[in-house]
Amino acid sequence: MRFSQFFLPTLREDPAEAEIVSHKMMFRTGMIRQVTSGIYAFLPLGWRVFKKVENIIREEMNRAGAQEVYLPAIQPAELWQETDRWQEYGKELLRMTDRHDRQYCFGPTHEEVITDLARREIRSYRQMPFNLYQIQIKFRDEIRPRFGVMRCREFIMKDAYSFDVDEAGCDVSYWKMYDAYRRIFTRCGLIFRPVEAESGLIGGSFSHEFMALASIGEETVASCTACDYAANVKKAEIFVSNDQPKRKEKNRRMQKVPTPDIKTIDALADFLDTPPQNLVKTLIFESDKGVVAGLVRGDHDVNEIKLMTVLETSRLELASDEVVEGITHSPKGFAGPVGLKVPMIADHALEPMVNFVTGANEKDAHLTNVNLNRDFHVDRFADIRMAVEGDGCPRCGELLRFDRGIEVGQVFKLGTKYSEAMKATYLDDKGNEKHIVMGCYGIGLARTIAAIIEQHHDENGAIFPMSVAPFHVSIVPVNDQNRELMQTAERISRGLQKEGVEVLFDDRSERPGVKFKDADLTGIPLRVTLGEKNFAKGLLEIRKRETGQTSRMEIDETVATVVAMVQETLRSYMPERNG
Amino acid sequence: MRFSQFFLPTLREDPAEAEIVSHKMMFRTGMIRQVTSGIYAFLPLGWRVFKKVENIIREEMNRAGAQEVYLPAIQPAELWQETDRWQEYGKELLRMTDRHDRQYCFGPTHEEVITDLARREIRSYRQMPFNLYQIQIKFRDEIRPRFGVMRCREFIMKDAYSFDVDEAGCDVSYWKMYDAYRRIFTRCGLIFRPVEAESGLIGGSFSHEFMALASIGEETVASCTACDYAANVKKAEIFVSNDQPKRKEKNRRMQKVPTPDIKTIDALADFLDTPPQNLVKTLIFESDKGVVAGLVRGDHDVNEIKLMTVLETSRLELASDEVVEGITHSPKGFAGPVGLKVPMIADHALEPMVNFVTGANEKDAHLTNVNLNRDFHVDRFADIRMAVEGDGCPRCGELLRFDRGIEVGQVFKLGTKYSEAMKATYLDDKGNEKHIVMGCYGIGLARTIAAIIEQHHDENGAIFPMSVAPFHVSIVPVNDQNRELMQTAERISRGLQKEGVEVLFDDRSERPGVKFKDADLTGIPLRVTLGEKNFAKGLLEIRKRETGQTSRMEIDETVATVVAMVQETLRSYMPERNG
Repeated sequence: MRFSQFFLPTLREDPAEAEIVSHKMMFRTGMIRQVTSGIYAFLPLGWRVFKKVENIIREEMNRAGAQEVYLPAIQPAELWQETDRWQEYGKELLRMTDRHDRQYCFGPTHEEVITDLARREIRSYRQMPFNLYQIQIKFRDEIRPRFGVMRCREFIMKDAYSFDVDEAGCDVSYWKMYDAYRRIFTRCGLIFRPVEAESGLIGGSFSHEFMALASIGEETVASCTACDYAANVKKAEIFVSNDQPKRKEKNRRMQKVPTPDIKTIDALADFLDTPPQNLVKTLIFESDKGVVAGLVRGDHDVNEIKLMTVLETSRLELASDEVVEGITHSPKGFAGPVGLKVPMIADHALEPMVNFVTGANEKDAHLTNVNLNRDFHVDRFADIRMAVEGDGCPRCGELLRFDRGIEVGQVFKLGTKYSEAMKATYLDDKGNEKHIVMGCYGIGLARTIAAIIEQHHDENGAIFPMSVAPFHVSIVPVNDQNRELMQTAERISRGLQKEGVEVLFDDRSERPGVKFKDADLTGIPLRVTLGEKNFAKGLLEIRKRETGQTSRMEIDETVATVVAMVQETLRSYMPERNG
Repeated sequence: MRFSQFFLPTLREDPAEAEIVSHKMMFRTGMIRQVTSGIYAFLPLGWRVFKKVENIIREEMNRAGAQEVYLPAIQPAELWQETDRWQEYGKELLRMTDRHDRQYCFGPTHEEVITDLARREIRSYRQMPFNLYQIQIKFRDEIRPRFGVMRCREFIMKDAYSFDVDEAGCDVSYWKMYDAYRRIFTRCGLIFRPVEAESGLIGGSFSHEFMALASIGEETVASCTACDYAANVKKAEIFVSNDQPKRKEKNRRMQKVPTPDIKTIDALADFLDTPPQNLVKTLIFESDKGVVAGLVRGDHDVNEIKLMTVLETSRLELASDEVVEGITHSPKGFAGPVGLKVPMIADHALEPMVNFVTGANEKDAHLTNVNLNRDFHVDRFADIRMAVEGDGCPRCGELLRFDRGIEVGQVFKLGTKYSEAMKATYLDDKGNEKHIVMGCYGIGLARTIAAIIEQHHDENGAIFPMSVAPFHVSIVPVNDQNRELMQTAERISRGLQKEGVEVLFDDRSERPGVKFKDADLTGIPLRVTLGEKNFAKGLLEIRKRETGQTSRMEIDETVATVVAMVQETLRSYMPERNG
């Protein structure tokens, strides 16, 4: 491709609205442009990278035996009503009405459509297992789109759905996809970690997220410093020692203390001159099992998903002011366990506490020297809090460390959630009707590209791994007026392209500095520079974008050498080579 | 691919709702399934064909120098309001409102989005020419979706947009695309014809449609039997001889005759015992130039687009009953030119007519023996009718023939329609601000597949051209209990795949008849059959799907022979080979 003919509007300045590196870089390199809030166009450079990632995904999905299909973007409301997600999905679901007043949504995911297909086509256990995937546009009406394509509204996902006769079969399908995802992200040159995860609105019984580690990641990964346990912090279990020693301190007399104008835990701790670890927070929730209280230590937070699991409820939300006032006879902010008449679940961290502080169920007042079993009883101790850095690993007890991560893929074991809701059944080998056991598996393509850039860039621009680079090599003749130089550059360009190397040939009448800046910015892994001095000696220069390392070589050897470098680098991203 | 693992729900029966062969075949072969009215899923077999067509298009677009991009499906209303198409597009435009109450549409085409991009990025004549294309989902809310993917609502189009500094440049871009389209449809194995066309809602000054000839086509192609003129019948001009001889008949006295309960032209001709060619139809239209009458011969129809061109108006519709009654003082159906007080445009075919019949502007009455210039005057003669079979070619005067066609692609010279509406300008080499000159170019991918099947099938199923076949070869061992036979089949399958031949290996425990039927149905060009009798002699059978021709060969020669057959057949679809 000749630079002069390539539609590549690069910019020297960062866009004002871009907060993170990948967004800035994708904008400045002319990879993307925003059409409207959360909706982007990909320009040719960005789309070339996109297609590289897409092809890696397609190859690995096919290798894993999945079969590509196309499911429509526009989906009828009736299917979503069958699974109740027409309601549950809320405002993120972009809804519309056609000319005949029928309701549809722009699919944010395709479980309903594929389950409908499966129930119409599958009759017998003989037709399974199989796995269908697509690379298709989704829309989620994010309330606050940001970070460029990282959190946008219209985006392209690879989503796959597996169909098995039983749990054991589904496990096989699940781990096949897990392995395929490892290969995919390895080939994309990402540093990533598969972590245990919650399954959220998709549902199901078991899930892993694939996290690309990056400081701007919106997710937190808790991983063990000793064993290979890793989980999204929202999911991370907490190590509970079987004997947590009680603090060696006598139970003192409970006292009510006035705490006017104290709004936060930290302010309360300051006011009482006690660490937050000596405070207990009492949170009142409404659930479909009624009103309950969750008790956690002052420096901890309730993990609502864990509490939901403990309560075996699918609906849980912080109680309204009216409910809190009705139960505690005081305004919000002063709830405490003493005298509270609702079921109470306490986090394990409360077990060893003595002489602690709680709300007094009275405006502007707290209780000090509160003690378990003397002043109040909890219904149950459980793991109901968010993990924090320094917690113990639930598998081995060693220290957990926290990292930020970008979720680039997620695999879900759905079980029979959708097949039950939509009556997708088959006849087993004894003629019994059973529910199909499903899994689903997603990868966000543009987000993967953003994550690659977050991990691979410097102040001059992106540094693409060869496997996903828009071009393998840029060829930069420094003086387009030197006819012989240009002819040689052109000959090398053609020679490389003939061998399958993708070349951006900078044939523009620009100063060398401009050309070098654009070559750096666009992140092409290798640059072949034809300068006049070297050229007079029959030499040229090869520069690696990643290291800045340059080497001179004979012009006549260039094609063979560069082809070998490109092929060797491409091979280095293959999982076979990474062990 | 092993048949036993391939998700291929074939059917023996045609679906009830399918009216045309391609719809029946795509359904029966498990290529597609309807999700809801006009919205389809592609299953693995169909998607394999789709990807073949997509790759041919991508290769040829790239060869023509176009650059691939991605423009979003969801487009903001504001852009469409700038070009007035938010109104003009009517109910075919699927509209929606997001959570912040902003309006969007699902793009049925992308002129607005790309012109917006161009006006933001293009400053100088130096940045042009370029051509951006995408392969993207569109939605048109057809009032009556039908014929499967031929006229559906959600569909994938390749759309390209060219940007040039002037008309001459745009012409170059246009004909480049025209040539690329010829190559694309040739490679798809289609019998097609590029024809002059109207530009409809897209607009612009000049257009060609690429018509795949097929009896079920919804379009009519008029083409000359002598020269290479061809046009959509809606566009076809009509040859008008410079001296049309008047009928040699004296002008007779005009008479009013009662014609009670006569509703149609044919009934009127019968009643008056005169051919329809002796009748004149008077149609009253409203336009933004006021009310006008169009006069055509009884056996002809007004072509409203031609009449609009003559009137230089962009709005024309049949007048309402009230307007007709106000002007003719009679109910609809009795309008005639005698005494009519609105501008009248008459088709050239009226020029030689004498003693003809018209409406009397009076209920249940017509006039006979009406004559031009004696009884009424027209404002202008012009070509305002639809061509009919037997008309003369506008270029050479020879006979026009009519064929049915499926529009698989269309190229438009847009000129400055969008760049003026959206102020997309650039500075020329003298520093003057000018409007960008645009072209746009579309191909319907699924419709192309349907057209291929319409042209290539027999009663047993599809017969895919090798270039777009879902697999090149099916391998059918007749007895899956014969271990040696199965191993040989498997060995051949692997040998072929290693050479890049795509194989569907029918490893199922089915009777040979079932396997042969599925091989025929799915339209795979070559079938390798391993029967037990041949196998005992070291032989197997190769069968061509298209001709049914079979030949026996040595098992050991199979891989080399089949690879050569596949490669040779693939080459035969390349335009280079077709001259």
